[in-house]
Amino acid sequence: MLHHFRLALAFGAILLFHLSPCAHAEVPKVPTQVPAYYRIQLGQFEITALQDGFTEHDTTVLQNINETDLSHLLSRMFVGNPKMQTSVNTYLINTGTNLVLVDAGAAKMARPTLGYVLQNMKDSGYDPSQVDTIIITHMHSDHIGGLIDAGGEPLFPKATVWVPQTESDFWLSQKNADVASAYIQPNFKKARDTAAPYLASGQWKTFKDGSVLVPGIQAVKTHGHTPGHTAYAVESKGQKLLIWGDLVHAHSIQFAHPGVSMEFDVNPKQAIATRKSILKMMAASKTLVAGMHLPFPGIGHVRAESKVSYAWVPIEYAPMPKAENKEDKGKNVKK
Amino acid sequence: MLHHFRLALAFGAILLFHLSPCAHAEVPKVPTQVPAYYRIQLGQFEITALQDGFTEHDTTVLQNINETDLSHLLSRMFVGNPKMQTSVNTYLINTGTNLVLVDAGAAKMARPTLGYVLQNMKDSGYDPSQVDTIIITHMHSDHIGGLIDAGGEPLFPKATVWVPQTESDFWLSQKNADVASAYIQPNFKKARDTAAPYLASGQWKTFKDGSVLVPGIQAVKTHGHTPGHTAYAVESKGQKLLIWGDLVHAHSIQFAHPGVSMEFDVNPKQAIATRKSILKMMAASKTLVAGMHLPFPGIGHVRAESKVSYAWVPIEYAPMPKAENKEDKGKNVKK
Repeated sequence: MLHHFRLALAFGAILLFHLSPCAHAEVPKVPTQVPAYYRIQLGQFEITALQDGFTEHDTTVLQNINETDLSHLLSRMFVGNPKMQTSVNTYLINTGTNLVLVDAGAAKMARPTLGYVLQNMKDSGYDPSQVDTIIITHMHSDHIGGLIDAGGEPLFPKATVWVPQTESDFWLSQKNADVASAYIQPNFKKARDTAAPYLASGQWKTFKDGSVLVPGIQAVKTHGHTPGHTAYAVESKGQKLLIWGDLVHAHSIQFAHPGVSMEFDVNPKQAIATRKSILKMMAASKTLVAGMHLPFPGIGHVRAESKVSYAWVPIEYAPMPKAENKEDKGKNVKK
Repeated sequence: MLHHFRLALAFGAILLFHLSPCAHAEVPKVPTQVPAYYRIQLGQFEITALQDGFTEHDTTVLQNINETDLSHLLSRMFVGNPKMQTSVNTYLINTGTNLVLVDAGAAKMARPTLGYVLQNMKDSGYDPSQVDTIIITHMHSDHIGGLIDAGGEPLFPKATVWVPQTESDFWLSQKNADVASAYIQPNFKKARDTAAPYLASGQWKTFKDGSVLVPGIQAVKTHGHTPGHTAYAVESKGQKLLIWGDLVHAHSIQFAHPGVSMEFDVNPKQAIATRKSILKMMAASKTLVAGMHLPFPGIGHVRAESKVSYAWVPIEYAPMPKAENKEDKGKNVKK
């Protein structure tokens, strides 16, 4: 009670006096945020999370949840209601042989809070011209929009863009576009416009489920959110990371209730089954996970809370491990 | 099962083939981490978390917990066992009138993973010479060590250092040093050495519990970890933040079991009572909290899991809110 009183006083009191009454020269504020990149080492691979920005989904995009559960879950995670901040992440993998970007963000196609992948990549020490391989989880515009600039020109001139064949076939099909609902229709046009320059130059390539894209990165079929949605199993020197794309959109809701779907799930039933299956496996195996819509940097672990419920455990900020050779030396390196 | 098989394949298989067999020019790795600063807006105040670095506490520093609970709690938070990574954070507050640093980190006094406050401050856009006020939560060397350089010279030449009177009296007392245990003895010498140049110049000042240090920042008595341990209630335009110093050291343990103490608690019983009281208040009032040993940036909320157990909910990475006037404009600003 004593503490309670003192703290109430501290926060509530009219502040009549203070100890440093002398006026100080004001120091200009510096209202910039730290750049949105974050790096980890995975075996011999260096992985850099790059944030494209964020969206604010309205809770009305959630399906299969009642108001009481919804409010409770948002409140316990201190997430905005009805506007849930949702990060848009991409991952840059330097395998030592290839520089691989997994998804490309939304670029400026969407809204002013998105489109910062290139800036964050540059801040992190890489240039888009160095990227030789781009791997796409699925063809929604917040994952492929960043492939082209506002004029439709490719932003990664030297990169081969690898797209799951089922996914590419679905979104580039005029027939599918013709029969799509008005809600989903714009996605087809955006997908075609984005793919166009890479298709024209022969840099757009497709692959079958389970393919190894580059040594250490293998496609994992995780259909449902979209018909060809694909996760990527990354492994180096026995260390593993599953980059799972859009397995979870609303972290405050879908870890606790994996049966909640989103209105942009093309096949919600399949998306739910896939999410439940992958969450169960990741929790059991304690595999490191990265997700495109998890709170930036979106890297962490899945913990099982019950047989049907999970929790997200983000990694802690840490410096890079000490370099093993001269070439790798740099600042902010773990001693 | 299908998914399980595919993922096991993805991670376990000998990779006999891949789709991009052509050799690429290797891109040099960039083994630097993003700078360890992070900024939030609190009313009119701009608050920048600055990491000094991290320590790795052995689990043997924990008291009042059995092996089973300990292993379970560390495992569920994916924290190292027996070495728990523990962040050391400080907070820089630009009130518009004062530039206030809350704690100064450990500098190079301790170990090579500490002592980055000045570098992170500079990366964040501020210079130590701009700091006019330093407020100390308590006089352990990972909180005051950063006040001086290796030669004992003050690193914040223009700052007044405000220290809770009880705390200053305790650590600067030769009598207390004389009767202290061998374990705690070095703390007294470090405290004296660190305070010395500021005492000599008249920049070391003490205050009583509950004092307002600068408008909007008030001391909150939270004794126990040390005899004068003090938290700071920060408030601007109705927005509140409690910078609670060392109320929690081992986040994976002490939120769930607030009755667990640390071997460096000067008065463990009082430290536990204080922690329980503050956690209860913070959870009930949903007040934003910052902690010197919480995972960087160490800002977030406390959630009550039961009447005696809590969870830590870190804030999500977000850009700074849009500037309200010309002077405040900058990059990475929320649109």
